[in-house]
Amino acid sequence: MTYAADGATRVGYLDGDDVVDLGFDGDMVAFIEAGAPHGTTRRVPDAVLRAPLRPRTIRDFLAFEGHLINAFGRLGREIPGEWYEVPAYYKGLPDTVIGPEEEIPWPAYTDELDHELELAVIIGRQGKDITTGAAMDHVFGYTLWNDMSARDAQRSELPVGMGPGKAKDWDGSNVLGPCIVTPDEIDPGNTWLTVRINGEEWGRDTTANMRYTFADLIAYASEELTLRPGELLGSGTAKGGSGLELDRRLEPGDVIELEAEPVGVLRNRVGPRPIRKD
Amino acid sequence: MTYAADGATRVGYLDGDDVVDLGFDGDMVAFIEAGAPHGTTRRVPDAVLRAPLRPRTIRDFLAFEGHLINAFGRLGREIPGEWYEVPAYYKGLPDTVIGPEEEIPWPAYTDELDHELELAVIIGRQGKDITTGAAMDHVFGYTLWNDMSARDAQRSELPVGMGPGKAKDWDGSNVLGPCIVTPDEIDPGNTWLTVRINGEEWGRDTTANMRYTFADLIAYASEELTLRPGELLGSGTAKGGSGLELDRRLEPGDVIELEAEPVGVLRNRVGPRPIRKD
Repeated sequence: MTYAADGATRVGYLDGDDVVDLGFDGDMVAFIEAGAPHGTTRRVPDAVLRAPLRPRTIRDFLAFEGHLINAFGRLGREIPGEWYEVPAYYKGLPDTVIGPEEEIPWPAYTDELDHELELAVIIGRQGKDITTGAAMDHVFGYTLWNDMSARDAQRSELPVGMGPGKAKDWDGSNVLGPCIVTPDEIDPGNTWLTVRINGEEWGRDTTANMRYTFADLIAYASEELTLRPGELLGSGTAKGGSGLELDRRLEPGDVIELEAEPVGVLRNRVGPRPIRKD
Repeated sequence: MTYAADGATRVGYLDGDDVVDLGFDGDMVAFIEAGAPHGTTRRVPDAVLRAPLRPRTIRDFLAFEGHLINAFGRLGREIPGEWYEVPAYYKGLPDTVIGPEEEIPWPAYTDELDHELELAVIIGRQGKDITTGAAMDHVFGYTLWNDMSARDAQRSELPVGMGPGKAKDWDGSNVLGPCIVTPDEIDPGNTWLTVRINGEEWGRDTTANMRYTFADLIAYASEELTLRPGELLGSGTAKGGSGLELDRRLEPGDVIELEAEPVGVLRNRVGPRPIRKD
């Protein structure tokens, strides 16, 4: 994970609740590229967890059928047949990432702010044309991802066919954390994901329900393309992982908690709603 | 522009056909971030032009109505009404960028490789909630962009609603160059763009026909979001700028030339078609 203390932001690991510095000079992506070296460790009191990494790239897939059934159902539409053929994805903006306990900015241009409950995989080893059988050898670890969305903006952009733009792109729109778990700490094929709003459970699903496994996503993304350390690939929203599916809306001040037992709880408060400038 | 000589890749400028080193240690994005400082210059014989930058991010819009009329017409569809309301965009992958005279790899998964003729703007100065009136103050320069596309992959991905993924993402799928022109060298509101295949003109359009100006694109992208030096925003394909619109296809060995008078000619050959592995 990445922590801040004494004005510095550094790479460390969690020993229980204690933060331990890993003796590495550089950010998480550089740490992964360097092969995750363990230097001289030291405990850091009063450390604050930050976003675990600024990913080299961000891709988000749509692997959970349960989410699609709910979301397309609300729109009165069927799931496109192509979804069963290819694991389509869109790309996000790495500079939008914030971390645990940071306030999520409410962009002035939306009336419909929504969360998304996702698990994401982080690439550890470079590769191209990676087979599903070899994909897990390229994994550094996993983290929770709250992929915030402006649903009204998404409705405007969707018909143009370019995927989500401003619907998902504002400063602070992507929340990662609270830490990265390594493959020995998690079963990515059967991890329960939960989302609570103000303590009330809104959604729960297991990665066992992903139609496309993380190995499938890595294989598809790497066709004819080099994947590099620090790239992030998201599962897409789990069933019940968004308010859209439930016809429920976030309000300013709401507390969003995403949880996966091995990763922990990613907790953020929604910021105040600005007055529109137009 | 960026050049290679004696095993090093460095930032320089063109004096006629001569390459002049700018005395800067770092890549183009670092050069822009540093405020484009002029150090001790020196002429570099036998320099080869490279991609002018690895952009910090890549966004591509759809600003030319003429392209949409052609492209949607081929599909038997009308232009979505939302296109007239918002300048939608998708994001690309910075690591896919190649430069002038490099061979364009033909990915094994496509039968329908296509080019796209675009002009792109490069951000020079950081900003957020930039107005259209102030947008030009944030521009570093402009370059040509050949946004290569796999049309069959695009047809598979489009109905899922996430925009283009593998349709535009493979090593070498985005060609930039041959150089960056600064705002004093170009009128971005009326620049003619041309594409030739094997010397034959296939398309020609002027940026005067963009429904959304570069200022509009910058303003939209920067709503509630910080734009940083080295980010790239593309115009989208000019009218006649793709084979899709003309029902014409590229073949291995074809030579693609994009031209804009102030920027020069971006010339690349299409690589051999690999045998499909599946």
